[in-house]
Amino acid sequence: MMLGAVMTMGAANISSPNGEIKLHVDVNPQGQPYYNLSYKGKPVISDSKLGLAAQEAKFIDRFTILSTDTASFNETWHPVWGEYSEIVNHYNQLTVNMKNVDGLLMNICFRVFDDGMGFRYEFPIQDKANYLAVENEVTEFNFPGNNTMWVIPGDYDTDEYLFTETRISDVTEALKKYNGVHSESQREKALESTVQTPLLAKSDDGLYISLHEAALIGYPAMQLDVDTATYGLKSHLTPDRLGVRGYLQLPFNTPWRTIIVSDDARDILASQLILNLNEPSKIEDTSWIKPQKFIGVWWEMFTGRQKTWAYSDDYRAKPGVTDYTKLTPNGRHPANTENVKKYIDFAAENGFNGVLVEGWNEGWEDWASYRKNRQFLFDKPYPDFDLPYLREYAKEKGVKLIMHHETAANAQDYERQIDRAFQFMKDNNYDAVKTGYVGAIIPRSEHHTSQGMVDHAQFVIEKAAEYEIMVDSHEAPRPTGLIRTYPNWLAQESARGGEFESMGGNPPSHTAILPFTRLKGGPMDYTPGLFQTDLSYYNEGKTDKAMTTLARQLALYLTIPSPMQMAADLPENYMRFPDAFQFIKDVPIEWRDSKYLEAEPAKYITVARLDKNSDDWYVGGITDENPREAEIDFAFLPQGEKFKATIYADAPDAHWDTNPQAYSITTKTVTSKTKLKQKIAPGGGFAIRLEPMK
Amino acid sequence: MMLGAVMTMGAANISSPNGEIKLHVDVNPQGQPYYNLSYKGKPVISDSKLGLAAQEAKFIDRFTILSTDTASFNETWHPVWGEYSEIVNHYNQLTVNMKNVDGLLMNICFRVFDDGMGFRYEFPIQDKANYLAVENEVTEFNFPGNNTMWVIPGDYDTDEYLFTETRISDVTEALKKYNGVHSESQREKALESTVQTPLLAKSDDGLYISLHEAALIGYPAMQLDVDTATYGLKSHLTPDRLGVRGYLQLPFNTPWRTIIVSDDARDILASQLILNLNEPSKIEDTSWIKPQKFIGVWWEMFTGRQKTWAYSDDYRAKPGVTDYTKLTPNGRHPANTENVKKYIDFAAENGFNGVLVEGWNEGWEDWASYRKNRQFLFDKPYPDFDLPYLREYAKEKGVKLIMHHETAANAQDYERQIDRAFQFMKDNNYDAVKTGYVGAIIPRSEHHTSQGMVDHAQFVIEKAAEYEIMVDSHEAPRPTGLIRTYPNWLAQESARGGEFESMGGNPPSHTAILPFTRLKGGPMDYTPGLFQTDLSYYNEGKTDKAMTTLARQLALYLTIPSPMQMAADLPENYMRFPDAFQFIKDVPIEWRDSKYLEAEPAKYITVARLDKNSDDWYVGGITDENPREAEIDFAFLPQGEKFKATIYADAPDAHWDTNPQAYSITTKTVTSKTKLKQKIAPGGGFAIRLEPMK
Repeated sequence: MMLGAVMTMGAANISSPNGEIKLHVDVNPQGQPYYNLSYKGKPVISDSKLGLAAQEAKFIDRFTILSTDTASFNETWHPVWGEYSEIVNHYNQLTVNMKNVDGLLMNICFRVFDDGMGFRYEFPIQDKANYLAVENEVTEFNFPGNNTMWVIPGDYDTDEYLFTETRISDVTEALKKYNGVHSESQREKALESTVQTPLLAKSDDGLYISLHEAALIGYPAMQLDVDTATYGLKSHLTPDRLGVRGYLQLPFNTPWRTIIVSDDARDILASQLILNLNEPSKIEDTSWIKPQKFIGVWWEMFTGRQKTWAYSDDYRAKPGVTDYTKLTPNGRHPANTENVKKYIDFAAENGFNGVLVEGWNEGWEDWASYRKNRQFLFDKPYPDFDLPYLREYAKEKGVKLIMHHETAANAQDYERQIDRAFQFMKDNNYDAVKTGYVGAIIPRSEHHTSQGMVDHAQFVIEKAAEYEIMVDSHEAPRPTGLIRTYPNWLAQESARGGEFESMGGNPPSHTAILPFTRLKGGPMDYTPGLFQTDLSYYNEGKTDKAMTTLARQLALYLTIPSPMQMAADLPENYMRFPDAFQFIKDVPIEWRDSKYLEAEPAKYITVARLDKNSDDWYVGGITDENPREAEIDFAFLPQGEKFKATIYADAPDAHWDTNPQAYSITTKTVTSKTKLKQKIAPGGGFAIRLEPMK
Repeated sequence: MMLGAVMTMGAANISSPNGEIKLHVDVNPQGQPYYNLSYKGKPVISDSKLGLAAQEAKFIDRFTILSTDTASFNETWHPVWGEYSEIVNHYNQLTVNMKNVDGLLMNICFRVFDDGMGFRYEFPIQDKANYLAVENEVTEFNFPGNNTMWVIPGDYDTDEYLFTETRISDVTEALKKYNGVHSESQREKALESTVQTPLLAKSDDGLYISLHEAALIGYPAMQLDVDTATYGLKSHLTPDRLGVRGYLQLPFNTPWRTIIVSDDARDILASQLILNLNEPSKIEDTSWIKPQKFIGVWWEMFTGRQKTWAYSDDYRAKPGVTDYTKLTPNGRHPANTENVKKYIDFAAENGFNGVLVEGWNEGWEDWASYRKNRQFLFDKPYPDFDLPYLREYAKEKGVKLIMHHETAANAQDYERQIDRAFQFMKDNNYDAVKTGYVGAIIPRSEHHTSQGMVDHAQFVIEKAAEYEIMVDSHEAPRPTGLIRTYPNWLAQESARGGEFESMGGNPPSHTAILPFTRLKGGPMDYTPGLFQTDLSYYNEGKTDKAMTTLARQLALYLTIPSPMQMAADLPENYMRFPDAFQFIKDVPIEWRDSKYLEAEPAKYITVARLDKNSDDWYVGGITDENPREAEIDFAFLPQGEKFKATIYADAPDAHWDTNPQAYSITTKTVTSKTKLKQKIAPGGGFAIRLEPMK
């Protein structure tokens, strides 16, 4: 041994409950902890070091293993909402307790499931360390080969990117295409070989591997530095703007680092590993938490019709200072009483729970964000938004208004206003809020994904729970399964969503990779349901074209499930296609069970889901830019029962680019023995409703 | 002219109402605005440039004067409390409206009073600029000669320094003595020729000149860079940690830059110019605002008796996480029920309004401050502090407990907790709070005096007003007369206070310069009233000796007036000197009128004050380390009336070092014709109560 003082106690090994995943943990001759992982005998992660460096103490090397603890756990729990009504949480646990020659104590806890593994650092109370100003975490995920990966570029402030498919060896080159489009912080830091999680990898021997984290609390988000020569990935924690990655007081447990693995892509989609690694709900009475399907005053601002969030064009208006009733209205402000009333009517007529209204409050006249100390007031409606009237009108119609809190990334000012803002919501009969953090963060020491903003997100969700408010957060740190702990956190954006169809478009592969990546953290407010996909329709100079057929938009309600699900298009467009719109009206937003039938990353997904509140099944499928024939095996249906299938499909000549609105609606009877070949157009999709026949 | 495009419209001149102060404003050939100021024909400030540079626009040069506006103003207003029951606000105003060749508009508003001048930049709404990220303000205060100055070193985070007397030419050398004692930020930035305000200067031709600012709102604090060669001082705004001095949206008015001037040092003390430049009270009903004299569980922690704010010695305790009832008490924690009960008894028996208790709440076990994200909870009493019992006990005794909120400089977390904290206060019958910001600031982008913390202070004082809470803030941005606008802001620390008598001592000159400097911004919670000045008395190894006689401590109640005034010593010490203690019991804390009888900076002050609520006068006087004979002319008394004077004076052999507790109490009858020569010991003082004789 190199260092005489270090003596290893011996390696530790543990397997998944079904024995197919094997983990090996040890310390090397330098006393550096490491692990490796295999699946059905194939290497998933080769020897990869573990540790954390803080200003005060280096938990890196010269460790010996003091002891190991093992345990098994098996429970079935019931989420408040989601893709499943019950989730099995079954794992074998190994905790490796270590001490180094400086007397520093570090325990690493591994949980091995049948679908992967999570591990975290647990720093116990100890004499040699109390506070840690984190310099870096040295967690490695070394791949044994030059895997293919689907990644977005490293960035401390945004994740609204298209994914890139690349070999590990080509990551640096592949990320160059983002030059000029990524956020200021990414440019600044030149993260040229850094990628974000959740990422998906595929090995040449057929393994699908998802890397992410679970239960991100009190710690910065993890990105990954890629070594293109060795195929190694290494933790890269988001620093604050002063360069520190986080401030910890012991005892402290880091978030879980997660590896989901299978030789079947469908298992990646079905995995509940990340939810399982989160703590159970902190909210005892969850009866007030209600999934919701909603429409909103929102897409109008993207269509090219020159509609604005702002009431006036006077950029010098200052919320709380300016008398807004004296401003000249710009006449292009859809968040006005008459228009919102129409949305409420439409929601009531078509069974939507809620109406989101963006641009209802003071502060949109200019967009200074980082350069000012207050941009928005959350209790000051614009003069043309008659809230007392609309509150009563919505109540009468049985519809809820959904609040919008765009903070312009001024988290500090939002915290100052939050009690008043939430009380204002309750006083006006709102119980859900869409939050936004567009711009550079205030406090100016923070990034969107640094520890301070992770703490802020927790502060907001807990404060919301106090007020019994549900949250749909945009531009917040990407989700890590915290919806289990805070089920009032219905959805997040945290990816390039449907709005980009008006800003360059989302290639069909985008929505075929999101479920393998971003969605592993939790539901996304993707805003599906665009029927008018060619924006030149509005005849206002906009030439963007959503890269989707109309039928595919219906499928997204199944492939991107969310308990806070929008029908994003304008009511007038739904009224043009009432038969297709019927599917959006019918489709549930919480599920008793889900079955992934077909899947390949960025290529195709076919999924079947059972309504939580009826015996109806739904099947949805999408492809990428290529045509495809889905093969649907209805074996998931209860044996011996007949179902009426209503099939919303691309017409034979449909094509996202040339003929997006060509769809067919047919019915057929199916049973558990039926096998159906369903054609999908380029950029297309299909959606099926299955109703038990009496 | 150098720049052909620039044409000056002509100089502007204005005088004070009595004509003795003359201001001249013009733009120079480069189009740079400048001013100069004279007093009785003597130059106070020679030509000094004006302007502000932002990232977006430079309001520096190539200006022409578009127009000038003049106005006069004369009002008498009545502060809620203070040294005077009425204050005359009488000035002539000149506003110089300028435009530069880039089209930038800047107005500078000057107000000239009989006791000095204030000016501010007023940036109107304009087309060429909306937001300003301030790079620097170029305001100059150029002295015509090598004045003597009393200064403390530039520092973004603390002002708790002893003053240094120095010629301008020697500032750099004089500030070297602070090496090693100033705060981290001062070391970092090497502010080797920068000083803080309020500062006092004295010219060789006998002028006393105070420089400071008024109404510091939404802007960083101003320090001053000294040019030792030219005798010029120049604005140095505190930046945030990212280097920006402030974010403004137009229209915006800066704080006032203030110059108080006289050939009589007493006028500097009497000047109300800074209050006059602040806005009237924003609080309409001020009936709940009550000046208070208080004692507190506080000095016990300084005496050397090893008493602690912390309940336990377990430095690993985490507020809100640790079960404090399971910690081992350290037995040295004075904020316990029994002890506080004794303080309540003592307060009730001796007519004090309040009892401050420090160390009552969770979080003192360790002091991590900047390294952790939550240090204190403001609604969690320690297990040995029975608040429900003490609340009722205090109520019964007619005494108010005074809250203590030490934030460990985590302003962001304080904002998160503040509503809960203030509600907790009201629920427990507290109506005043002492706040503290010890350590480096969180948000980590801020300094104690950067714009963000100025905004925080405003947020706290306005929030406190909502709850009808009075504030005594420590380690906040130094005061600028905002007590006029927020009369619930009873006092601040913002200087080296009495606590330093246990940490190196305050030389007698310190309390003789504070009223000329720090106190111009507003009252100080100096914590006078130390009777046991030799800390070796406690026989616990502490050798510090307060540099004061006992009689001087009584005088401080008059020379450092405050509506939130402490009797800082332990009750047991007051009981040892009940006759001297009588003065502390008697002395008022708000005044109908004040007359400064004698004054020389850092040397001596004699002041007479008339009780606001009776016809009693009080006279107090102090000297520096030299003995002195004050000459008190009682001409301020109403003619023809007799007063019984109770004189608390140094005994003939008293000396701060060798015999501090030697005092005499004598009585004598005085009238407006009396002249009294009163001896003062080295480091001594005297206090006189004058009661009308019936």
